[in-house]
Amino acid sequence: MLVFLIVFTLQAVAGFISQVMEKAVSFNPSQVVPTAGATPAIEILSFCLADAGNAFLVPTPYYPGFDRDIKWRTGVEIIHVPCRSADNFNLSIAALDRAFDQAKKRGLKVRGIVISNPSNPVGNLINRETFYSLLDFAREKNIRIISNELLVGSTHGNEEFVSMAELLDPDDFDRKRVHIVYGLSKDLSLPGFRVGVIYSYSEEVLAAAKMLARFSSISAPTQCLLISMLSDAIFVRTLITIIRERLRSMYTQFVTGLKKLGIECIKSSGGFYCWADMSGLIRSYSKKGELELWEKLLNIAKVNVTPGSSCHCIEPGRFRFCFTTLTEKDIPVVMDRIQKVCGT
Amino acid sequence: MLVFLIVFTLQAVAGFISQVMEKAVSFNPSQVVPTAGATPAIEILSFCLADAGNAFLVPTPYYPGFDRDIKWRTGVEIIHVPCRSADNFNLSIAALDRAFDQAKKRGLKVRGIVISNPSNPVGNLINRETFYSLLDFAREKNIRIISNELLVGSTHGNEEFVSMAELLDPDDFDRKRVHIVYGLSKDLSLPGFRVGVIYSYSEEVLAAAKMLARFSSISAPTQCLLISMLSDAIFVRTLITIIRERLRSMYTQFVTGLKKLGIECIKSSGGFYCWADMSGLIRSYSKKGELELWEKLLNIAKVNVTPGSSCHCIEPGRFRFCFTTLTEKDIPVVMDRIQKVCGT
Repeated sequence: MLVFLIVFTLQAVAGFISQVMEKAVSFNPSQVVPTAGATPAIEILSFCLADAGNAFLVPTPYYPGFDRDIKWRTGVEIIHVPCRSADNFNLSIAALDRAFDQAKKRGLKVRGIVISNPSNPVGNLINRETFYSLLDFAREKNIRIISNELLVGSTHGNEEFVSMAELLDPDDFDRKRVHIVYGLSKDLSLPGFRVGVIYSYSEEVLAAAKMLARFSSISAPTQCLLISMLSDAIFVRTLITIIRERLRSMYTQFVTGLKKLGIECIKSSGGFYCWADMSGLIRSYSKKGELELWEKLLNIAKVNVTPGSSCHCIEPGRFRFCFTTLTEKDIPVVMDRIQKVCGT
Repeated sequence: MLVFLIVFTLQAVAGFISQVMEKAVSFNPSQVVPTAGATPAIEILSFCLADAGNAFLVPTPYYPGFDRDIKWRTGVEIIHVPCRSADNFNLSIAALDRAFDQAKKRGLKVRGIVISNPSNPVGNLINRETFYSLLDFAREKNIRIISNELLVGSTHGNEEFVSMAELLDPDDFDRKRVHIVYGLSKDLSLPGFRVGVIYSYSEEVLAAAKMLARFSSISAPTQCLLISMLSDAIFVRTLITIIRERLRSMYTQFVTGLKKLGIECIKSSGGFYCWADMSGLIRSYSKKGELELWEKLLNIAKVNVTPGSSCHCIEPGRFRFCFTTLTEKDIPVVMDRIQKVCGT
């Protein structure tokens, strides 16, 4: 019974991902390993692809949870690959190359690179050209790529979203380097369901990940709920459309609100966040200055944001605002509160 | 919302454990860390209590899954503490002492001992006297105790079940050494729900375990189901009574059936299994002889049993029979099949 349940779950989730990506690519259920959320999916891949003491390259700013997911129990190290405002916080292969060389000099064996597309916290997408350069880089250095595509259904701009899965030729041996992480926490707003997946082209990684997923299985009642929910193609299509419309509208209103306060955001095309430049509002251009403003925002304005330093951003004064927990009516209230604290 | 859900889940599970133990002891919800099954609960405790390269003492025969749960990702080693048929496979402190000394000679730092009560595969219980000796041993060697009490509600004999929790004086500093693992897979026959708990008296371990439980959270819909199910005290009481009656009846019939075939089982008081001595039926008194019989049982008789060697039993020819997946009508069929293969 449980075996059938898992098969149906894999089919439902694989079908759902294909639908979210607007059928640009079809996902094979046999390449999916289900996990209790994206958090264990990333940890399992870290256990599979690296030994303790090895390293992954991770472009900054990145989702603060990566420090937990990649490092805590595996002993894997993270080498920061700084992205900068001058590049719109896009990934540069030159920076990747530098980080790789520095790691090598420190005696660290680099096993892979972890990218997030759409990015969290910035919200930008990785374009085809960068992807091809990334694949070249991975081939040249003989390392793996973990592509965190958790926010794939939550794009709101006009920019094209490209999944790692779309670029890979079925005959290309380098497909085996690529491992995609997905989950329903964001796109279906179901973090409490604890449903994530690893999608891999490597039979070895799939076999190992399946064994390790025993520590993070999806509950059977939740699988039943999922199958019924995701099998309803009309519901899924409508949901994705509504989510994208709401995201676009909330993003535009929120960013416009910040702009009126003199706060600019990086142009973003996906995710629940905007990445605001408040460097002009901090008293000292440093982490200390950033955290002083963060504390004022939290304790005086009662606005809970993520300071850039906790995402390891190298430019102080950047903040991640999550606008999807708000309703439209909240936006003026939030802007009023920010204004009082920032005194613009 | 999710915070309340967890609080209610903790209350429901803590209340359920107290009820299963017939209120001999009350469990404090604030000492419970929920996990997605007992498997990650044991792994999380291993991560919390030992570093890679450290060791745990584990009496054999033990549940084969411990090799995965304790060792795989943590790098912790297991030191076998052999229990023997001459002692009815009960734990001997002398054997524990010997194993500890051997580990020390190998340069291994022993961090704890993992016991299962009721035992899986044998089904015997640990009595008060042994528990007190164990606590003395742990104090003397300054190590921790993980007490796996997964089958606490599944006792069927007249013997008294004693939980580690009952023995600990509230003022005793040594309480902090003790960490109990429980789950609903066995007692409620809900393995697919993935619900386990760590119950600990150490604030440090609770704090660390809560952080690591992020990799193995219980799904919210499952928590809702659980709260509603476990809050129904009459249902729980009736269920436990019925389970115990059925277990006792099936155990008696199954063991009697084997006895008629000349196969004796160790007297057991808990769990879903009986521990059969088929050493007289193997062609060579070795692991090889045992596995030959196991293969005949599996492939010719189509009876799926666990060979003692996979539980690291040092006496060849012992097998674990799980009788709870059968109905009463199945028993004569199973006995016929065993007889044909064993030719008694």
